Parts: sequence; C-alpha cells; structure tokens
Amino acid sequence: MSPDPSTVPSEPLLDAVPAPPATQRVMIGAASPMPLDGGDALGPFTLAYRTYGRLSPDRSNAVLVCHALTGDQYVADHHPVTGKPGWWDTMVGPGRPIDTERYFVVCANVIGGCMGSTGPADADPRTGNPFGLSFPVITVGDMVRAQALLLDHLGIDQLFAVIGGSMGGMQVLQWAVAYPERVFCAIPIATASRHSAQNIAFHEVGRQAIMADPDWRGGAYLLEGTRPVRGLAVARMAAHITYLSEPALHRKFGRNLQDRARLSFGFDADFQVESYLRHQGSAFVDRFDANSYLYITRAMDYFDLAGEHGGHLANAFRHGPKGTPVRFCLVSFTSDWLFPTSESRTIVHALNAVAANVSFVEIESDKGHDAFLLHEPAFWKVIRGFLDGCAEHRGLPPRAAE
Amino acid sequence: MSPDPSTVPSEPLLDAVPAPPATQRVMIGAASPMPLDGGDALGPFTLAYRTYGRLSPDRSNAVLVCHALTGDQYVADHHPVTGKPGWWDTMVGPGRPIDTERYFVVCANVIGGCMGSTGPADADPRTGNPFGLSFPVITVGDMVRAQALLLDHLGIDQLFAVIGGSMGGMQVLQWAVAYPERVFCAIPIATASRHSAQNIAFHEVGRQAIMADPDWRGGAYLLEGTRPVRGLAVARMAAHITYLSEPALHRKFGRNLQDRARLSFGFDADFQVESYLRHQGSAFVDRFDANSYLYITRAMDYFDLAGEHGGHLANAFRHGPKGTPVRFCLVSFTSDWLFPTSESRTIVHALNAVAANVSFVEIESDKGHDAFLLHEPAFWKVIRGFLDGCAEHRGLPPRAAE
Repeated sequence: MSPDPSTVPSEPLLDAVPAPPATQRVMIGAASPMPLDGGDALGPFTLAYRTYGRLSPDRSNAVLVCHALTGDQYVADHHPVTGKPGWWDTMVGPGRPIDTERYFVVCANVIGGCMGSTGPADADPRTGNPFGLSFPVITVGDMVRAQALLLDHLGIDQLFAVIGGSMGGMQVLQWAVAYPERVFCAIPIATASRHSAQNIAFHEVGRQAIMADPDWRGGAYLLEGTRPVRGLAVARMAAHITYLSEPALHRKFGRNLQDRARLSFGFDADFQVESYLRHQGSAFVDRFDANSYLYITRAMDYFDLAGEHGGHLANAFRHGPKGTPVRFCLVSFTSDWLFPTSESRTIVHALNAVAANVSFVEIESDKGHDAFLLHEPAFWKVIRGFLDGCAEHRGLPPRAAE
Repeated sequence: MSPDPSTVPSEPLLDAVPAPPATQRVMIGAASPMPLDGGDALGPFTLAYRTYGRLSPDRSNAVLVCHALTGDQYVADHHPVTGKPGWWDTMVGPGRPIDTERYFVVCANVIGGCMGSTGPADADPRTGNPFGLSFPVITVGDMVRAQALLLDHLGIDQLFAVIGGSMGGMQVLQWAVAYPERVFCAIPIATASRHSAQNIAFHEVGRQAIMADPDWRGGAYLLEGTRPVRGLAVARMAAHITYLSEPALHRKFGRNLQDRARLSFGFDADFQVESYLRHQGSAFVDRFDANSYLYITRAMDYFDLAGEHGGHLANAFRHGPKGTPVRFCLVSFTSDWLFPTSESRTIVHALNAVAANVSFVEIESDKGHDAFLLHEPAFWKVIRGFLDGCAEHRGLPPRAAE
C-alpha cells in the first residue's frame, strides 16, 4: 500500500533530473600566453570542456567534437542552464554513431564563449573588470590552437577523429589544415571553407541589433549592471530563420494562428511562427552572452582558408608531396541554404586536387541548416559507417557487439 | 573663353536637379468612412498620388502602378526626400515599357504609408495627436479599396492595366479578385498569393527590432519627440538581405574589404557588404516612418487569397460561369528566394483551373527579389510585349512610332 501522499515530504522536482556533471576546466597559457591570429596573445586562460567514455591505453580513440556558434561543451549531458538534453545526444553516447563505449569524446567550449571558457564576460586580470570589448578578437584558428593545447594537456598526440557542423565544421577544416599529423580522420558537416557575403551580412545584422541596444553600453554592460537582452533576442531571431528551411517552416507552422481562431488585427504574435521566433529569442538570452555573440560571429566571418593560402583552397591541404594524410568525410543537406551543398563541393574539389582520401554525402532533408542537429537517421548512418571504416583502418578494437 | 571660376557666383548644386513635382492628393471617405477588413472604418483620409501622361478622352488608357513595401508614388520622378530618380523610371516614362506617351499612369502611396497618404504618423482627428498604434491595422484589401476610390475620383471606370512587384503584386492580385470588371489586364510580378511562414518570420524580426528600440515608446515616439532609428535601421538591414540573392551579394561584394588592406580584428565594418548594409539601414530611416513599417509589413503577412476563399486559390478568381475576365501576365525571377517562382506557379495553376487567360514568364536573373527594380532588359521586353498585345486587343491607338 502506498503511503498517503499528503504525508510524504515532497522532493523538489529538480532532483528527478540528474544533476549535470560539473564541467572540467584547464588553465592554458600560464607559462607563456597563446599567440592569437590578430597579433595579441592570450594567457593564462581557461578552457572548459567535457569528456565522455574512456581514453584507451594507447590513446588512439579520442574524438574531438567541435561545437557551432551558440553550442557548448554539453554535447551529451543535460545543459546546466536550460536543463535540456545535450545538443548532440543523438550522435554522441553509448551505442550512438560516436559511441562513447568505443571512443573517448572531448568537447570544449570555444575561447570567446560563455560557458566556462575565457571570453569577453570574464574578468580581465589586468583590471579585474569584465573584458568587454577589450577582449581580443579571436579567429577559428585561435579556437583550434587552444583545443590543441587542451589535447596536449590530456596527453593526446593524435585525434582519431574531429567532427563538427557549421562553425564546428570550420574548426574541423582548420584542424586538418593546421595540424594534419594530429588528425586521423575529419568530418566537416554543413560548413564552408569561408564565410560568404550573405553569411557575413546576416551576422552583421545580428551584431548591429546588439550594438543598437542602449543596454549594450559600448560593450561594458556587465560593469554597468545592464544586459542588452532585446538586441540579443533580435539577433537570435534573425539568425534562427537562416538555420531552418522554408519548407520546414511551412511544414511546422505554415500560416497557422497561435492560440486564436482569427487574426487579431494587431501586433501580437498572431502566427505560430511569430510566437516560436519570439520564444527562440527570449530563451537564448538566458544562456548566452551578447559580447560572446559578437566575438564568435566575427570569428566565423573572418574564416577564409583559401584567402589565407594565396587564394587557392587546395593549397590549404597541400602538406608535402603526399598532399594531406587526413581522411575526410564531408556531409551537406539539400535544404541548407546557409551553408549550401555547393560550399561542400568546393572543399571536395580542393581535396581532390591534392588527391586526398575524401568521401562526400549530400543528405536529402527538408530541415535546413539545423538538420545536422535533428532526427536524420540517414545522416547518422553515414557518420557511423565512416567512423567504423576508419576505426578498422586505424586498428581500433571492434565494437563490443561485433 | 570661360569665365574665371573664382568670380562666378556658385549656384547651389541642388538647383541642377529639377524640383520634384508636388504630389497630388485627394481626400477620401469624407461623406462616409471607408470600411476596413479589420472591422473599423477610416475616413476622411488622404491618398497622395502621382500621375504621368494623359488620360485619353474615352478614359481607356489608365495604368495603375502598385508600389512595394517601402516604395511610394514617385515612380518616375525624383524623390522629394532622397533626390534619387523614381523607383521604376526604367519601366515608366516616355518610350519605356509603360509608355507615358501612350498610357495615363497613376501611382498612389498606400494607406498606412508615410509619403502623404494617411498613416500612423498623421494626426488622429479625434485627438489631434499622431495616430501611432491607434491607427487601424490595414490589409492589402484595404489598400486596394482606397485605390478604387481614387479611381472613382479620377473618373476611371476600368484600368487598362494594373501592375506591381512584391507587395505591389499582391495588390495587383487583389485588384483582379475584388474588382475583376475594373481591370483589363493584370501583371503581378515577383509576388505570391499569400505570405509564407518564412516571409512572416523575416517581417517579425524587423518589427521586433523596431519595438525593441526604447525610442519607439510603445509607438508614441512622435508625441514624445524621439524616433526609433536604430531599430528601424536593423529592420531594414535584415529585410535588405532577403531582397538580394547570394550570387548577387557575392558578385557585388564577395569578401572584399572596405577601405582597408587587411582585417581590423575589431567590430568596424571590415567587409564591403557590412558597410553597404549599414548604409542601407541609415539611409532608410531618413525617408521612412517606423510605425508605417509595422503596419505595412503586417498587411503583407495577413495577405492570403486562398485563406479568404475557403482554402482554394482558384475560387478567388472564379467570377461567374466564365471565370475571370482579366488577362494575366505573371513574372518571376530565378534567383528570387523571397518570392520564388513556385509561388507564381501556384497562382498560374489556380488561374488555369478557372481557364483564365494567363501567361507566365520566369526571367533568368541572379539579382534576387530586387530584380524587378533593376536592369533586366529581358523583363522589360516581356512587359512591353504583353502590354502592346493587350493594347491592341483593347483597341488603344498604336504607339506614335508604329
């Protein structure tokens, strides 16, 4: 017989959700600051990261997951702010394509971020006040340089795989270009070798929205006790549209009305798509720092592998007479108009020009750019298959069930 | 011998530009207010308009041009605020496709606008203060109803043609649906029979940017002596990206830097595309009212011809047993992703279902949605050809040169 519920002391509901594990942290650049592409140096600074699975005795099974613009290190466990599942828990976990019973998975919050890695919201040791705009502008190259130092700290000479979508894919490409000998295989997803004019334009709108908010205070809002939440929400809303496809928006919302039978003839959110966007904007400001948004979008805008290699993308992958030792698998999605398939093809052509080992799959999906984060079994199968093949080639022990 | 320039009194440069003609105005709804789709009524109110050419004695040569979201009545003469040429002076003028030596062209600023027609910036006669948000929400149907009253005032029973792009195309469709007997031929360009979820989403971002600006003051900024110029500029920037294509942005700007040899590693406008967007934003606020932007975007969002006809678009064009008497020519542009060709095809299929007289041309262009305003000779040829054919059918006298 169950006890009288009225006499049972109620547990706080939150206890039902396992407490998110504390993030891991490492201090980098204490001995000497890390040089930045912009000419400054940063250090000491913190990288916050999460690991999943176990590093094998020969340290050959490490997979680095690189997160996108607003992602973080919580790939496969509940997010400490939102309480939501990890942003890629469909991809990373026991039995998942990136199987944590087989691989040792590492994911670090990028420098400039706001989930524990040093960024503009942190205290500048020179002043004790938040960096704000005195934080140095960083690049995708700087993000990856910091990750390489993290791997040094973890004692990992070579990654079995580096994988990521969108800005994560840019980091994957940067890894293959900057540290080819440290990467066995690379999986750049829904990404590009440079940010296009349209991509820069959308980012600039977001930055202008943030900087137009009087509460931004020239970037010094933390010092002044304000937060540019309205501007940041508008930035998120504009960006969010670019992550979805028109067909996906149509399927999801169409012209459906929100909690009403007819048009209100006013400026409330009549349509579900308006309500959805407003929610995306307001939820985002609870978990993201506005200056981090400025810095990370800037890093993406600056990304241009061909530009850094004499205008020839193939040169970026030309490492000695044998080209690149890295095995590539590129993935794009048919309805992604932010990083369309043509961008992946450009990379594939450059890799072909150096006779790289490269496979390329375009996944049929109507979900737009965000498809890489969503339910896409055909995509998961591609990743699993490519990793399995590479694992065999690398001599990793087979999966437990195999 | 030319006189010594230093002794010649300099003329103000502005005099070199012919002074823009004063707009024409008519007061409508003085006897009885015009009913609005939202249930309110408006009147008396002003419509500001421009005419070009001469109305023929039998009044058979009138062409109504309908402007887009941020357009106005200055189709073919210099804009009084910007000093720039008329927004469609490549299309309308002597010898142009809409030949003002042959046709009597009328273009009115839409109600809710801010170039002379009554809108939210005008004084509410009940209070003497600017309407602000007490202005009634208007629809494309209301805009067209007001234009019909203007034509009554001008003594024009039937338009030879009604033509417009984007929101102008929505008005063209509305004309054909609401007043089929008053339209001989209709030319909806780069438009749709309803605003899609993605279109609504982009508009909502713009509205949120405006309403997030503290200077918007709940819409009462004119009364409080402020103007939400930052929010309005961000709205314009976001919208402007949607008017262009990715290839056009790439061709125009690529990743070219603005007045500098290398990246600044800061948040200035490093890239030309950023500088261009900022200019688009700041120039716009000089000529447009923020509340008008809210109202007109809302009117577009509400547009849904099928929705108003039992979910069947063909029913909108079913006027009696013979279908519609209007002759249609639809035009779309290959790179227009805001109002893609598929939207025009949907309309063509509906017109085919009522056996309408319809032709449809998709113009190859990389200029995106704005192509209808730009240098597109193939497009001009289509318009000229269709109008010439309809003119012959209608029995208009041939062109002077013919």
